[in-house]
Amino acid sequence: MESGAKRWGCQRKQELNAASATTVRGCLNLIRNNVNKDSSSSVVPLGSGDPSHFPSFRTTSVAEDAIVGALRSGKHNCYAPTVGVLPARRAIADYLNRDLPYKLSPDDVYLTVGCGQAIEVVTAVLSRPGANILLPRPGFPRYEAWCAYNRIEIRYYDLLPDKGWEVDLDAIQTLADQNTVAVVIINPGNPCGNVFSYEQLNKVAETARKIGILVIADEAYDGTVFRSTRYVPMRVFGSTVPVLTLGSISKRWIVPGWRLGWIATSDPNGILQNSGVIDSITGYLNISSDPVTFIQAAIPQILENTKEEFFSNIICLLRECADICYKRIEEMPFLTCPKKPEGSMFVMVKLNVSMLEDVDDDMDFCLKLAKEESVVILPGRAVGLKNWLRITFAVESSLLQEGLARVKAFCCRHAKKQ
Amino acid sequence: MESGAKRWGCQRKQELNAASATTVRGCLNLIRNNVNKDSSSSVVPLGSGDPSHFPSFRTTSVAEDAIVGALRSGKHNCYAPTVGVLPARRAIADYLNRDLPYKLSPDDVYLTVGCGQAIEVVTAVLSRPGANILLPRPGFPRYEAWCAYNRIEIRYYDLLPDKGWEVDLDAIQTLADQNTVAVVIINPGNPCGNVFSYEQLNKVAETARKIGILVIADEAYDGTVFRSTRYVPMRVFGSTVPVLTLGSISKRWIVPGWRLGWIATSDPNGILQNSGVIDSITGYLNISSDPVTFIQAAIPQILENTKEEFFSNIICLLRECADICYKRIEEMPFLTCPKKPEGSMFVMVKLNVSMLEDVDDDMDFCLKLAKEESVVILPGRAVGLKNWLRITFAVESSLLQEGLARVKAFCCRHAKKQ
Ligand SMILES: Cc1ncc(COP(=O)(O)O)c(C=O)c1O
Ligand SMILES: Cc1ncc(COP(=O)(O)O)c(C=O)c1O
Repeated sequence: MESGAKRWGCQRKQELNAASATTVRGCLNLIRNNVNKDSSSSVVPLGSGDPSHFPSFRTTSVAEDAIVGALRSGKHNCYAPTVGVLPARRAIADYLNRDLPYKLSPDDVYLTVGCGQAIEVVTAVLSRPGANILLPRPGFPRYEAWCAYNRIEIRYYDLLPDKGWEVDLDAIQTLADQNTVAVVIINPGNPCGNVFSYEQLNKVAETARKIGILVIADEAYDGTVFRSTRYVPMRVFGSTVPVLTLGSISKRWIVPGWRLGWIATSDPNGILQNSGVIDSITGYLNISSDPVTFIQAAIPQILENTKEEFFSNIICLLRECADICYKRIEEMPFLTCPKKPEGSMFVMVKLNVSMLEDVDDDMDFCLKLAKEESVVILPGRAVGLKNWLRITFAVESSLLQEGLARVKAFCCRHAKKQ
Repeated sequence: MESGAKRWGCQRKQELNAASATTVRGCLNLIRNNVNKDSSSSVVPLGSGDPSHFPSFRTTSVAEDAIVGALRSGKHNCYAPTVGVLPARRAIADYLNRDLPYKLSPDDVYLTVGCGQAIEVVTAVLSRPGANILLPRPGFPRYEAWCAYNRIEIRYYDLLPDKGWEVDLDAIQTLADQNTVAVVIINPGNPCGNVFSYEQLNKVAETARKIGILVIADEAYDGTVFRSTRYVPMRVFGSTVPVLTLGSISKRWIVPGWRLGWIATSDPNGILQNSGVIDSITGYLNISSDPVTFIQAAIPQILENTKEEFFSNIICLLRECADICYKRIEEMPFLTCPKKPEGSMFVMVKLNVSMLEDVDDDMDFCLKLAKEESVVILPGRAVGLKNWLRITFAVESSLLQEGLARVKAFCCRHAKKQ
């Protein structure tokens, strides 16, 4: 064969490899591979935002029952319509309409394969030659990956650690030009664990309106808020600025493997409609993969029948874990946490590299920590901040304690002698 | 708002609208919208390849039980690895290894959100400036859509109706140049309902090897073969030419809504590996949506425990339906069927437009048929052949009889007076 075929019409696709190298998944795979297989200590996974493995974080039986019911009916083995089945779209519209000054209709909701596919769809739809987008730093690298793939230039605005991860509004003004298509806001925050105030979001909306760009509101962590800051969905400002809300059941119901998310368009003034964005969303979904039909069919029951108790229990657990995490980190001079987490499943902490003997940077820290202590943590560079760490606290609390104790032991062992 | 915002950084994305307009889904939506809502007769859907609605085509309880078991275990609510869970990859490798002269390993298998996402992945991976691809005409328009989106130039080779839908091998030779990246073979055939012989496939493999392009073997209809022609998977020729097998459980298990498919790489000579195609597949999957984890987890049971009786029953049903369909079509001078269907769920028939009074073409035929008779059929142009029709016979046989009787009544009513 080698001799017969002159050439094979295939080659490495550099953009793809570049795009995928920047994902959390790619980076965590690297760190995990560094865990010492011969070590007797069990792995403590503080890397990804997926507590579904742990008994305390098991999803509600209401959700499981809804799925089994839909499956056993035999009525939902079929292909679904392009935009999703109507009862699910209606239930999601109702879910998103709580506390909204205007009402979304089922037609404003598009079902996606998790919030992840929602990111794919909106970046595909907004891409055009020369387009740029404003992303938060630190942020969620899936945006970088899809923007790179769809050739949208990325411009970063900072989240300010000294101001409790507030948005740098001036940067948004300065960065935007006539080719800017949108600004992305992740709230509750991944990776910072912050929750934006009403005033902050209002200012973001006003700024976006002034520049004339739409807001992509990633609310994947909607519902995981456990302090006094009230969570305000961005679409509250829908009459100020067009908002694309991206969400899913992955985090709130702790079922990331169910792959059910959505895009909801808040467009009371018809800007998305008239500019053709809505048509393009449908167009992209027409050629894309759909979420599983029987899971779509279970959505009304899941959204409407889940008991408040399930949510409040999860919120309690997350608050407890966030408290433990914050307290343990405060005890370590090697790490600085600018803000106690208020939401999501993560906290960003600064690594004081200068206090450590033989640790070059965040990546080196995470690789050595994995090797020596079997603890997996995400290096901050994976989310845009070098020499920071993103720590997931959404794990069983005993495991969290164990993991952070090992981090401390590691730091002490590698501390510079005074 | 209208006055406040000078411009909104968003606009219609023509490529997307163009790409999605060509899908079967898009075209069928058009036809369905033409059905007379006030008509008393029920709709006969002979448009799409999804018999899961019909009681006779209900999937096996083995498959349903496997899903329920995986879900109820609570162990598969989590994110899955990029390429899919290992037991599923192993089970699919075993499934594909039947009758293979070499063995695929689990590492050669990549799980996708249906065979549809597999098409997305391979076109994304193979795209590069100037690339072209050889597609069958008639064919499956999802390829056109993703090639258009990924800017791969499409070159058509014909399937020859006068030769029982054989591949026009000369065309493949003539069309290919140094920028050709692959040739797509759909077997069993959608839309033609043909099954390629061993000799045909061998010739395709030899031709592809001579030109030096890989073969994308779309085997979504694997297992739906009901005549004497033995079904041969393209990967049998893996040592002649690298083969990417695309498949799914959608059709054979009649569960298209479960969204579980795969790409399997047959690459005994390491051509895909060395050229970087394998890395690019993983790279694209790293940023893409995954199939549902608990469905992945159910795959070993589904593939290994489904009773032969379930398959043979479905094959029987399909044969019966194909026979009815062929017979009824033969009775109508308005339609010509070049070949009795041997596999898949479809047959292509030529519309003898000149025999009809006030029917312009296939599109006009399908729109009027929907309006007057509430029968939905896909116009051939949607799959690349103007003035042909693609008829789905995979429906309850009574419904098929009813639908074809209405087609006949329609044709007679619109027949030119001799
Ligand atoms: C900010 C953010 N957006 C989107 C997603 C993707 O969510 P899903 O699992 O629903 O695809 C995640 C997952 O971690 C996330 O953190
Ligand atoms: C030839 C062909 N390939 C791929 C697909 C997509 O299959 P799936 O439903 O598994 O995404 C279809 C569906 O009709 C098809 O006909």
